[in-house]
Amino acid sequence: MKGLGATGGAGVVYGAMSAIGLAPAAAAAAFRPPAMGDLVGQAPGHHRVVVLGAGPAGLAAAYELGKAGYDVTVLEARTRPGGRVWSIRGGTEETDLNGETQRATFSEGHFFNMGATRIPQSHVTLDYCRELGVELQPFGNQNANTLVNYAGDTPLSKTSVTYREAKSDTYGYVAELLHKATSRGALDDVLSADDKAALAEFLTDLGDLSSDGRYLGSTRRGYAGEPGAGTDYGTQLPPYGMSDVIRSGLGRNFAFDFEYDQATIMMTPVGGMDRIYQAFTDRIGAERVRFGAEVTAVRNTPDGVTVEFREGGRPQSITADHVICTLPPHLVPRLDHNLPADVVAALGSAGRTSSGKLGIEYSRRWWETDQRIYGGASNTDKDIAQIMFPYDHFHADRGIVVGYYNTGPRHQAFESLTHRQRLAKALTEGAEIHGDVYRDGVTASFSGSWARTRFSESAWATWDQHSPEYRLLLQPVGRIWFTGDHLSNAIAWQHGALTSARAVVTAVHRRVAGAN
Amino acid sequence: MKGLGATGGAGVVYGAMSAIGLAPAAAAAAFRPPAMGDLVGQAPGHHRVVVLGAGPAGLAAAYELGKAGYDVTVLEARTRPGGRVWSIRGGTEETDLNGETQRATFSEGHFFNMGATRIPQSHVTLDYCRELGVELQPFGNQNANTLVNYAGDTPLSKTSVTYREAKSDTYGYVAELLHKATSRGALDDVLSADDKAALAEFLTDLGDLSSDGRYLGSTRRGYAGEPGAGTDYGTQLPPYGMSDVIRSGLGRNFAFDFEYDQATIMMTPVGGMDRIYQAFTDRIGAERVRFGAEVTAVRNTPDGVTVEFREGGRPQSITADHVICTLPPHLVPRLDHNLPADVVAALGSAGRTSSGKLGIEYSRRWWETDQRIYGGASNTDKDIAQIMFPYDHFHADRGIVVGYYNTGPRHQAFESLTHRQRLAKALTEGAEIHGDVYRDGVTASFSGSWARTRFSESAWATWDQHSPEYRLLLQPVGRIWFTGDHLSNAIAWQHGALTSARAVVTAVHRRVAGAN
Repeated sequence: MKGLGATGGAGVVYGAMSAIGLAPAAAAAAFRPPAMGDLVGQAPGHHRVVVLGAGPAGLAAAYELGKAGYDVTVLEARTRPGGRVWSIRGGTEETDLNGETQRATFSEGHFFNMGATRIPQSHVTLDYCRELGVELQPFGNQNANTLVNYAGDTPLSKTSVTYREAKSDTYGYVAELLHKATSRGALDDVLSADDKAALAEFLTDLGDLSSDGRYLGSTRRGYAGEPGAGTDYGTQLPPYGMSDVIRSGLGRNFAFDFEYDQATIMMTPVGGMDRIYQAFTDRIGAERVRFGAEVTAVRNTPDGVTVEFREGGRPQSITADHVICTLPPHLVPRLDHNLPADVVAALGSAGRTSSGKLGIEYSRRWWETDQRIYGGASNTDKDIAQIMFPYDHFHADRGIVVGYYNTGPRHQAFESLTHRQRLAKALTEGAEIHGDVYRDGVTASFSGSWARTRFSESAWATWDQHSPEYRLLLQPVGRIWFTGDHLSNAIAWQHGALTSARAVVTAVHRRVAGAN
Repeated sequence: MKGLGATGGAGVVYGAMSAIGLAPAAAAAAFRPPAMGDLVGQAPGHHRVVVLGAGPAGLAAAYELGKAGYDVTVLEARTRPGGRVWSIRGGTEETDLNGETQRATFSEGHFFNMGATRIPQSHVTLDYCRELGVELQPFGNQNANTLVNYAGDTPLSKTSVTYREAKSDTYGYVAELLHKATSRGALDDVLSADDKAALAEFLTDLGDLSSDGRYLGSTRRGYAGEPGAGTDYGTQLPPYGMSDVIRSGLGRNFAFDFEYDQATIMMTPVGGMDRIYQAFTDRIGAERVRFGAEVTAVRNTPDGVTVEFREGGRPQSITADHVICTLPPHLVPRLDHNLPADVVAALGSAGRTSSGKLGIEYSRRWWETDQRIYGGASNTDKDIAQIMFPYDHFHADRGIVVGYYNTGPRHQAFESLTHRQRLAKALTEGAEIHGDVYRDGVTASFSGSWARTRFSESAWATWDQHSPEYRLLLQPVGRIWFTGDHLSNAIAWQHGALTSARAVVTAVHRRVAGAN
């Protein structure tokens, strides 16, 4: 089975698995890292590659090329690896493009991930965690005990409802309605008698319906008073009304967890997502990753590429046989370059996104003790969009809640504010969802906005991956190769950056080895 | 808020929370542990309580009484704490009532929980973990990448389908059908125009429907070939047919995770569920918990209770002011006792359950590398019922899969078999779901059947908690008090045992303090 995968690619594996009745999750396309032996006799000598950026794409490219003995240098403007994979801990300091400097004072061991925070099971990111020895744990991506809270014109407007109540009532009424419709014969042209019988059985289970097909509430909603000893039977609360539930849109976020990339179980490294890129850096060799090296120019020359950069205030330059450029597309044209106009236009066609997070450390894990929430997120149509609860340090004396993770206009409502103003707005909106406890015992906080973060200036690229511009950038310009999640079908995911790096590494290696 | 809860009980908390728009998960009913000071001046002197059984109920009772200075002795027939909370590790040895002795040879650090394995967020079990310093982690209770496989008369019979495919197709067609019915006006008597508009919006999202309300498949199902770099767009696979999906009952297990006690996020102690009872034992004081002490008699006397037991082959006896009996109800009448006939009959009225598990250690975590499964369970209508994947040791060189966890007739298909036969049957059925890899690299295994396990002889009790028999046993017989999850509304959950222990501790303490 493994052999088939290695030689024939993922499609072959699937065909073979189908034959024995298996349809597992997709695995990443076959990738063979370049090997020392590939160059022997074909392209002897020294092959220098300079990688611009020590984010996921840059570090993966340097790591993979290093396996074949390439002389790789990574230039990174920041003083840390990971790029938009950025775990905020006590001591993290950053001056944003608004001109404000924040310094995080979170307690020892606590952190939050400003960027990437979860990994789908199918993503190649997990394979790198295995290869690099990065310890993993589950990331809670849905929780029956977190809350939804939406404004509207029903009695449920701006009311906090647990996901378990919202799901029970929404699925209950949906099941009741479809059961009723089929009982009336309204779908007899599309459903056979056998279909209807099987569907009725499913709907009864889906909605916890009564024997006559009605949703009358359910223990799934939870209780006022936990069932326990003796005659503590638990008091079941009545469901919300059907029209209120439907018109309030309590179920508007249920499908989040159905999405291919967001379905439970999600994974994350123990101790912060940036652990992956610390591990990459260690493997590549710290001496090959130059931090604080801000690239200012990149130019194809007749027999190579010249890169200019500023390190410790001092202008420097380096030449290479190839350059792998992982910078955000909209930042590349700002370099001193000799790229053709159509490439510059293509780079500029990538849309930018506003997004960011705010981490709030509390002196007490009230979400666990008072509200029985052990991870996952609450969802709202307020500007904060969601509140994400920590997936680690359960039962510790403190913890960090992500007070918002939002995009577009809802993030823009925060990004021009000072940190103090962001925190105040987030606490106000959070308290409207989780109660007054949300304002109490805040011991530290830190916020970030990718559009206002130096060297990023956007959370992720948006464009059509079938467009001519996108396709143009998949080709090298002379000896300059573009790479990053923006050049993948997993934009904003580490998987996109990592697979893009693998693709470029494969192409560079083929070029060097003379295969194309 | 906390003050309200302590004085007025959970109901009051709920009322107050509703007023600010909160409806959090239920918390356990207020419990005040007995305190030293309660007895001062009221019941001075020495108060001896003997607890029969060192499972969750017994240890919690001993622990709570210990807080008030009671002289507590726990008698436990087994050589370990926890009762049906039993984590199987290398070195675990057990002779079952079939007469077979197994000795587990699992690798260092690996284990599986033969009994309780997951904790709902609302359960008081978590509060004890916090109080006792037992480290927690999430337990994956659903996974989009695990499989369903059911027999039937459709083309999907005995085919392995991922939960993500099953959910996408099932919800897709359910959404399409209800959308169609409402579009036809079939529910106009129960849905207003506003209801219909809101419902259509929800259904489109629920089912990933096309603009004309049809389910045509979805990226939610997954891909053949993971989307990745450049033009690796991922190949979407077509959905299964509507009638096949409905008639195959692919969705028959979706509601499992909607249940109050099974909804994500579930928690579990790091390193095995029995860590909780090791911690209880440590706190109570190992000298007060006598292992290998098998109770043979319990008798009310005019001024106390006499307990006879066998320890190291030697008959012994102990007297106490009160006895808390946590033995399974059906085993109590076997003791030498002077209980009244109605109590004996009530004890005997508890139904018994067949259930158990089989742990299989593999030399390779094929479920992660080959099938991208990081926890959760596959579901089937074969006898094995489900296959549970480990929630820890991700990416280790080996791991333990639970090859079945089943109850009733499907467990009975295993319980009379030898361990070797059980393993063979489990591997055969498992391979029909997960492929031939399921048979490869098995390095160790261990199985247990609670109905065939000494000192249990049943997985859990079944009865009507409103019956006169159940209610009778909530009352003490002289100075003998019955306790356990069987005397709760959370049977088979640690929460039931723990709340039952708290209730009896409160009642014993009131009696001793002269309050009733």
